[in-house]
Amino acid sequence: MVRVGVLAGSGYIGGELLRLLLQHPEAEVAYATSRRYAGEYVFRVHPNLRGVTDLKFVSFDPSKLVASADVVFAALPHGESAKVIPQLADAGLRIVDLSADFRLGDSAQYPVWYGYEHPRPDLLEKFVLSIPELNREEVKGARLVASPGCTAITTILALAPLLRTKSLGVDTEHIVVDAKVGSSGSGGKPSLATHFSERFNVVRPYKPAGHRHAAEIEQVLSAIAGVRIKVSMSAHGVNIVRGILTTSHLFASGRVNTIDIWKAYREAYSGCRFVRIVKDKHGPFRLPDPKLVIGSNFCDVGFETEERTGRIVALGATDNLIKGAAGNAVQSMNLMLGLDEASGLAMASLHPV
Amino acid sequence: MVRVGVLAGSGYIGGELLRLLLQHPEAEVAYATSRRYAGEYVFRVHPNLRGVTDLKFVSFDPSKLVASADVVFAALPHGESAKVIPQLADAGLRIVDLSADFRLGDSAQYPVWYGYEHPRPDLLEKFVLSIPELNREEVKGARLVASPGCTAITTILALAPLLRTKSLGVDTEHIVVDAKVGSSGSGGKPSLATHFSERFNVVRPYKPAGHRHAAEIEQVLSAIAGVRIKVSMSAHGVNIVRGILTTSHLFASGRVNTIDIWKAYREAYSGCRFVRIVKDKHGPFRLPDPKLVIGSNFCDVGFETEERTGRIVALGATDNLIKGAAGNAVQSMNLMLGLDEASGLAMASLHPV
Amino acid sequence: MVRVGVLAGSGYIGGELLRLLLQHPEAEVAYATSRRYAGEYVFRVHPNLRGVTDLKFVSFDPSKLVASADVVFAALPHGESAKVIPQLADAGLRIVDLSADFRLGDSAQYPVWYGYEHPRPDLLEKFVLSIPELNREEVKGARLVASPGCTAITTILALAPLLRTKSLGVDTEHIVVDAKVGSSGSGGKPSLATHFSERFNVVRPYKPAGHRHAAEIEQVLSAIAGVRIKVSMSAHGVNIVRGILTTSHLFASGRVNTIDIWKAYREAYSGCRFVRIVKDKHGPFRLPDPKLVIGSNFCDVGFETEERTGRIVALGATDNLIKGAAGNAVQSMNLMLGLDEASGLAMASLHPV
Amino acid sequence: MVRVGVLAGSGYIGGELLRLLLQHPEAEVAYATSRRYAGEYVFRVHPNLRGVTDLKFVSFDPSKLVASADVVFAALPHGESAKVIPQLADAGLRIVDLSADFRLGDSAQYPVWYGYEHPRPDLLEKFVLSIPELNREEVKGARLVASPGCTAITTILALAPLLRTKSLGVDTEHIVVDAKVGSSGSGGKPSLATHFSERFNVVRPYKPAGHRHAAEIEQVLSAIAGVRIKVSMSAHGVNIVRGILTTSHLFASGRVNTIDIWKAYREAYSGCRFVRIVKDKHGPFRLPDPKLVIGSNFCDVGFETEERTGRIVALGATDNLIKGAAGNAVQSMNLMLGLDEASGLAMASLHPV
Repeated sequence: MVRVGVLAGSGYIGGELLRLLLQHPEAEVAYATSRRYAGEYVFRVHPNLRGVTDLKFVSFDPSKLVASADVVFAALPHGESAKVIPQLADAGLRIVDLSADFRLGDSAQYPVWYGYEHPRPDLLEKFVLSIPELNREEVKGARLVASPGCTAITTILALAPLLRTKSLGVDTEHIVVDAKVGSSGSGGKPSLATHFSERFNVVRPYKPAGHRHAAEIEQVLSAIAGVRIKVSMSAHGVNIVRGILTTSHLFASGRVNTIDIWKAYREAYSGCRFVRIVKDKHGPFRLPDPKLVIGSNFCDVGFETEERTGRIVALGATDNLIKGAAGNAVQSMNLMLGLDEASGLAMASLHPV
Repeated sequence: MVRVGVLAGSGYIGGELLRLLLQHPEAEVAYATSRRYAGEYVFRVHPNLRGVTDLKFVSFDPSKLVASADVVFAALPHGESAKVIPQLADAGLRIVDLSADFRLGDSAQYPVWYGYEHPRPDLLEKFVLSIPELNREEVKGARLVASPGCTAITTILALAPLLRTKSLGVDTEHIVVDAKVGSSGSGGKPSLATHFSERFNVVRPYKPAGHRHAAEIEQVLSAIAGVRIKVSMSAHGVNIVRGILTTSHLFASGRVNTIDIWKAYREAYSGCRFVRIVKDKHGPFRLPDPKLVIGSNFCDVGFETEERTGRIVALGATDNLIKGAAGNAVQSMNLMLGLDEASGLAMASLHPV
Repeated sequence: MVRVGVLAGSGYIGGELLRLLLQHPEAEVAYATSRRYAGEYVFRVHPNLRGVTDLKFVSFDPSKLVASADVVFAALPHGESAKVIPQLADAGLRIVDLSADFRLGDSAQYPVWYGYEHPRPDLLEKFVLSIPELNREEVKGARLVASPGCTAITTILALAPLLRTKSLGVDTEHIVVDAKVGSSGSGGKPSLATHFSERFNVVRPYKPAGHRHAAEIEQVLSAIAGVRIKVSMSAHGVNIVRGILTTSHLFASGRVNTIDIWKAYREAYSGCRFVRIVKDKHGPFRLPDPKLVIGSNFCDVGFETEERTGRIVALGATDNLIKGAAGNAVQSMNLMLGLDEASGLAMASLHPV
Repeated sequence: MVRVGVLAGSGYIGGELLRLLLQHPEAEVAYATSRRYAGEYVFRVHPNLRGVTDLKFVSFDPSKLVASADVVFAALPHGESAKVIPQLADAGLRIVDLSADFRLGDSAQYPVWYGYEHPRPDLLEKFVLSIPELNREEVKGARLVASPGCTAITTILALAPLLRTKSLGVDTEHIVVDAKVGSSGSGGKPSLATHFSERFNVVRPYKPAGHRHAAEIEQVLSAIAGVRIKVSMSAHGVNIVRGILTTSHLFASGRVNTIDIWKAYREAYSGCRFVRIVKDKHGPFRLPDPKLVIGSNFCDVGFETEERTGRIVALGATDNLIKGAAGNAVQSMNLMLGLDEASGLAMASLHPV
């Protein structure tokens, strides 16, 4: 059994990490930290874990924590991870970080996107940004892993096969990513904007421009495409709690052929347990829809083409807290430790829900 | 009092027309037709009208109907209006048609977009496609009016000021319109796709390519822009009943300046009772959101710019059954008859709801 | 035009009062007070009123406010009204109070239910607790009116005809009222319990016992029944924003006959514009459902009987912010001033929504 | 590995059985029947099972089916099970039936509640009505098991400890059960009543009297109480897909003491993995709420007392498709086969969702 620790376990991503790890057949949760809830039962904060665990939150004390876990998952806010992770990394722990602090390879990007100077640029190249479906071998060999943002994972998995396929002639300067995100993506802290009466029924363009995940998406997809790509991203809050749909609009100068695109997706994700290609002729769910991944680690991808405008519409759907965050992190840990990639993650989604 | 008739009054748009017209201070509803519900009380089909009207549906009998109304609203399915409207038009009635059958000016477009040959191409040029904020004077003089589709009205109102402003240098070949639509937009007929358990919680890309409203949008905006524009449109069903948000992504080669764009919107909609420009610095509703127009005839428009990608994001929000359909139709009638444009339409939206 | 003032206009009930009064054909809003938002545009707080009013909130200054309004609506929190209203009442203003502070006729009940000694017990008998359908004449003659709580109005209107009908032999000791309430009923203040991700999808028994509205219900229904009745009330939050359904379970020792009960309801509400008796054989809406009153001042009532258990199930549905609060208050004002009872309130509900 | 078959696997309960059994570590699904979908992939009907199974539905052919499974789960409609099950039972198969056809012990009740004469009254006494928390030993020895209705399980588990506790003096003639049920409880067949636009936002009293589950509840609770009890039940559809809350209102003549009631619940469910007693002083989830059991086999129970009215409010919450149906059935199978009761059922609920 691998001993795992969870830093900042009181948020929604922390709660999902705990839920997955407590049920993981090859892991045991050594501790979960929380500044605010230290000493409190985990199930008081994550009431779904009542009857599942009697664990209590502890405060963060690096000297104790290093010895008692083999792998540490960090669900700290952006900026906080960069302060705490270096000492754990230096102590030799395996780390899966879910903040943005070790996602970008170029330290010069941190002032631009996150407004701070990175305190340990040297660590950036040691962290592997993990999307196992795209860089499985690299993750297997890593001790330090960063897990991308939820909209980033979803967008990247939907777009990677298209950007690899040179014959499509995708216009890499004009890629529009229009994301629709459930409320859990914005965390557990109450505010007027998240007050139920104000949030119910919305289609809220909360980040129409300047979305930070664009940086991660561009970094990964540029590497895949072999050219510098540019992503025009807008994010909307919709009337659900879990789930993301990203709709990416690409303009293609080449021959846009459904069969070729199918083939690109099939080749990209052959053997991938957690990516499903969804493109049916009939039924209510002909294309990816977050409703169908809730509770699972699946990322559903699919596409449609429009000859008249020379457009490819690429769709990706995830449960933002699972494949978009905690599930991708656990999947990464499985690979880092040589376990079955799907261990603890093979649950089917709930339907209907 | 103007006597109005409603053809096909049993659908959601028909019901909304009846709700608005029954409460209109200068109109009286002479009749409402329904093939299926002829003889039935209107409130059995539209249960919100219980206690509001004792009207019964009648079957469609042109000879009777012509004499008893001054204005006819037609909420027939596409293809049906084209069969029925000509005789009413020839008889001299004022008509507001809410189908697509008289929206496109070029009869050659009907086989392309709707799969049928238009039976009366001569009538197409007599119909005015009415968005009063854009062609008020034309509507005032019209006897025959077509009201655009709900996503079309919403998109057009959000984009018109930008396409008029040459200095922005909008790339008219790569306009992406990503629409999020409530369930009422797909009508009242049950199916597996609209079964509550299957439809709840979705973000469903039901029309990622080939959306017919693109034809109307291109027609109107091309005229405004003075060049042929192309619209790349995708539509998604979201977890609400009423409301549309359209997110339009434009690439601009010119100088994109917030103040100039503000000015363009202000000039376009100065004096327009039903268009609100929403672009605030604070609060949960800084940009258009359909939640805030529910129950009203407002179209909220707003925008954001992104220098890095040369992008303008233009947002439009309507209640799809009101400003997106029945409200725009009644507003058109008001103008056609020389009434106050806002007569019967001045209700504020409900909040919270 | 009657000049009206609104005290504490920044909450949900205050916002609904403003929406209704701004659209009222015979009223003009002289002012709206808010401690927190004084100086701020009303539409910044109630964004649905953007484009509807340019009014700004003012702070509460009795000397100024008395002179500038004929009627004052108070939407203050319980306990606050009792401090502020007396001086306005003493100054001769007409008042419609929406707090609980003047609802109970017996001052001894305030320590029991609300935990405070009433500062002006002498005023309690001067206030008329207004449900116009039950005491219209009394309201017409009143200068001081209290409007009951939302679940109270809904329950009372559903039960009054049954408690009046002695032949039913209702067991007045064992009346169960099970209420299902939308989130707007708990106000606009954010908290963990109202955080969207925590509140979405709930069926939350937030007040299973000890609900304060039981006191009002018992007061009114005891008077109607002529005996002291006891109400066992539980309230649940459900996954909607607007609307209340109260399900009341009565045990009857007498002959429970559908026709007799129908007759009791018909007689009770004959000529009442805002009460609809809903009991259909077919269709999805055979009995009251809050979905069908949203946006309207209707209270729908209906019932079902169960011979096996000797039970009558009485159902009531309102829009908690309209007939449950602001609408009932405006209706009361109309009567107090000799206006048409339905003035400014005749809007049909929205459907579907 | 036990070989299991699922009859009528295309409905929501069938789908949930398949989801649970496909993931069950000690079971393999031998077949799933469907009249309508025979020959079709299971994942076309239950799209959440895409990528999880390649099973296809088969038609019902008893001669083949008997040999290939050890246990058969039947999710047939009421009336259909009674036709099909006898031959399978006679052939010696272990059966878990989820219809109502073998729930009632007294065949005379079938004409009363279900409108048909039971074809095989002799089988009724051979079927064990299984709620493992109440009759675990009986289920362990059974070959034929019936699983109660979803509202019945939820209500019974909340009430059993109270009806066992004679000192409370519960009035067994006036037990009110007010149920709030998600849409999945009414199945997967589209209709106007379940059309999204008509079903969203409802609080619909769809079965205010005469609910059939009252028969099961009375049967089980009468046996527990040792006297004939009577249940007054009303069921409402609420704006969720999964989940049930039952609010039971009991009048007690005895001493109603919170500590005694706590003790009664603790004793009843000591050692029960799937019943949690929820009664907290703080937080949004102080009492059972279906939101917190979604995706799990938990039944949460809790209570509140009201001295003034002599009332106990007992609350129960389940995921209607899991502990309310498929989960309870699988739990029963585990016991019948001597497996760990929680095998395949130990997943925590999702939160937030």
